[in-house]
Amino acid sequence: MTLPDDAPDGAPDSPAPQTPDDLPVVRLKPKSKPQAIRRGFPWVYADELVTDRRTKALAPGTIARLEDAERKPLARVAVNPKSKIIARVIDREGRGVPDHAWFVARLRRALAHRERLFDAPFYRLVHAEADGLPGVIVDRFGDIAVIQPNAAWADVLLQPLADALAEVTGVTTILKNAGGRGRSLEGLDAEDAVLLGEAPAAPVPVEMNGATYMADLTGGQKTGLFYDQRENQAFAARLARGQDMLDVFSHVGGFALAALANGATSALAVDGSAPALELAASGAAASGSADRFETRQGDAFSVLEALAEEDRRFGLVVCDPPAFAPAKPALEAGLRAYERVARLSAPRVAPGGYLVLCSCSHAADLAAFQGACLRGIGRAGRKAQLIHTGQAAPDHPLLPQLAESGYLKALVFRL
Amino acid sequence: MTLPDDAPDGAPDSPAPQTPDDLPVVRLKPKSKPQAIRRGFPWVYADELVTDRRTKALAPGTIARLEDAERKPLARVAVNPKSKIIARVIDREGRGVPDHAWFVARLRRALAHRERLFDAPFYRLVHAEADGLPGVIVDRFGDIAVIQPNAAWADVLLQPLADALAEVTGVTTILKNAGGRGRSLEGLDAEDAVLLGEAPAAPVPVEMNGATYMADLTGGQKTGLFYDQRENQAFAARLARGQDMLDVFSHVGGFALAALANGATSALAVDGSAPALELAASGAAASGSADRFETRQGDAFSVLEALAEEDRRFGLVVCDPPAFAPAKPALEAGLRAYERVARLSAPRVAPGGYLVLCSCSHAADLAAFQGACLRGIGRAGRKAQLIHTGQAAPDHPLLPQLAESGYLKALVFRL
Repeated sequence: MTLPDDAPDGAPDSPAPQTPDDLPVVRLKPKSKPQAIRRGFPWVYADELVTDRRTKALAPGTIARLEDAERKPLARVAVNPKSKIIARVIDREGRGVPDHAWFVARLRRALAHRERLFDAPFYRLVHAEADGLPGVIVDRFGDIAVIQPNAAWADVLLQPLADALAEVTGVTTILKNAGGRGRSLEGLDAEDAVLLGEAPAAPVPVEMNGATYMADLTGGQKTGLFYDQRENQAFAARLARGQDMLDVFSHVGGFALAALANGATSALAVDGSAPALELAASGAAASGSADRFETRQGDAFSVLEALAEEDRRFGLVVCDPPAFAPAKPALEAGLRAYERVARLSAPRVAPGGYLVLCSCSHAADLAAFQGACLRGIGRAGRKAQLIHTGQAAPDHPLLPQLAESGYLKALVFRL
Repeated sequence: MTLPDDAPDGAPDSPAPQTPDDLPVVRLKPKSKPQAIRRGFPWVYADELVTDRRTKALAPGTIARLEDAERKPLARVAVNPKSKIIARVIDREGRGVPDHAWFVARLRRALAHRERLFDAPFYRLVHAEADGLPGVIVDRFGDIAVIQPNAAWADVLLQPLADALAEVTGVTTILKNAGGRGRSLEGLDAEDAVLLGEAPAAPVPVEMNGATYMADLTGGQKTGLFYDQRENQAFAARLARGQDMLDVFSHVGGFALAALANGATSALAVDGSAPALELAASGAAASGSADRFETRQGDAFSVLEALAEEDRRFGLVVCDPPAFAPAKPALEAGLRAYERVARLSAPRVAPGGYLVLCSCSHAADLAAFQGACLRGIGRAGRKAQLIHTGQAAPDHPLLPQLAESGYLKALVFRL
């Protein structure tokens, strides 16, 4: 195992290379239910595991054998005593450990799926648990791959993962993005790195839904690009033909540029981030639709209120805010924020027009989010048909046993 | 109001034409909650309404004013004392009654939505409550429209509806299809009729997802065509490129022909109905993919077992069975049937291939259906990623207040 350049080589918490013969054993408590693991649930929480001195001393990322309370083997797991998710299932018992061949096999399988779906190599290549690489996100931008190792084991085995990634995909640049929310929960640092090749000096053009987007993968803002809304952007773009559209919380113009590429008369992108709007504008220029594209920087709620004073109406309005309810404690306030988005945006929709309301909050399930949207639309005095419920694109597969992974919701209403 | 030719003109239960001034009044019981109606719920159940002698004597389909127990006006409703859904909200109070102009306005609004979505006039034009025409389904096949008047009021006002439909869309043929399950619950007959023009003498070609389908709208089998799976068929077709595919419960070849049009190596369509398979074969011929298309008539479960003995595997398997759980009493048996479909079809999927499992059962919600599918896949010894959850196409809008209307589920698994 080669450690990445920025890893503290030989530091006390980096484990020695492991072979199947020398794996430590961790064990479920007698009260914990091994059935969930047997049925494919991928996580063991800290209070479910016997955490004796030996287990507590395991270096974060150690691969171990998980047994039930009767010492029957359950799975190969990656252990992190610093995390509430103390063990993540890596493979069935009796299999290998994550070495080069193991990573290659997992990545090939992930790649085959994306190649079936997309003509060009721009997609989420690895979506964590569902792709058999717990906590690992890999986004691909042509010859560049960005890894988010959001679990300790992947941080430890980052270089073998990167080597396999280069071999399987042929990418020439691999970046480590350590900005994921999950890393602090795992006790991991926030230091980005270049694992292969050279960091791109300029934003990377990405073709999607007929438009060209600009993804800043390494710049000061590191806005990146979200692939999860691709299908929802395609759906909304169908509704935008011949219409003025409003894209609130536009980021780099995900919905706006797709709408323009599909014949929208105009698009107004609203975001709090000036750099994101600049990238959106470069994207519009690269897509040949700069003359129909306008931006307005500012707080989304204030801009919606300003647009109300100007009495502006649009055939299509999209609101794709940041996660207002990322976790349970924020749920109530989050739902109120979603309701407010709906209440302020619905009046901006022309009669017979469309309103797309999105949530990427794990804690707000579809029913709760839909309820908040309908309350907001109702308080705005509008009636709605629900014509489509969108989700994350199919390069973001779900582990059916992990209901939480269905985080993205896009509701398309006709008002 | 002109009555259709086959209606018993002047029969005791056909109401005289109504004007806003002469509408009877019906009233909610004191214990019934008017809030649901105020929030947009479109139905009043028989036990919620004061059913005195006067109300009971109202002819099925009578338009009335609905009041709450305090005599405050709630809505305009269509009353049917013979139905468990005794009143359906037709409009807000103070509006007109369903006359020509009223139908024209509703249909224009419905048409505008479909014209935004589709380039060619083949779609569901009216999807009942969500399109403001409770109980009314209208499917359009180019110059032909097929009306399913599944509520008494629409049966009574069928001719004004047909007249407005011809005016708004320019269709030259209008057929009445009285085969809907809902009609018997409303105490309506099962007599089809030709309301305008002449019934087509041959199956009608329908272009969808790059394929040509054959819809028999009037023949002995009247297989028709289901528009609701259009987007799911498009999604599955993306996965079929370069693959052999199996379409179980294929009907007229919905998934198979789309897959072939998108580059599937071969498609095998399985159905119990020989006429449906004949139409599928004509569709394949019209689509230029007859040489890659095969059919097998028989019970789907038996054919799946036969394919197991032949050890046949496919890159894509689709199962779109009839509703196994159309209503609550059939739920348990229905879920067992869905589990069996999953258990028998999963082994027919090649490693890394895809399995699409559909349910059009109102009674089986998404979670229950997904659970049944996963149990079946698990019992077949396979593991699954969930990559997409499909629903009815956007020309089948939902009334958000009517959760039951989200009947169609399509789960796309990778095995």
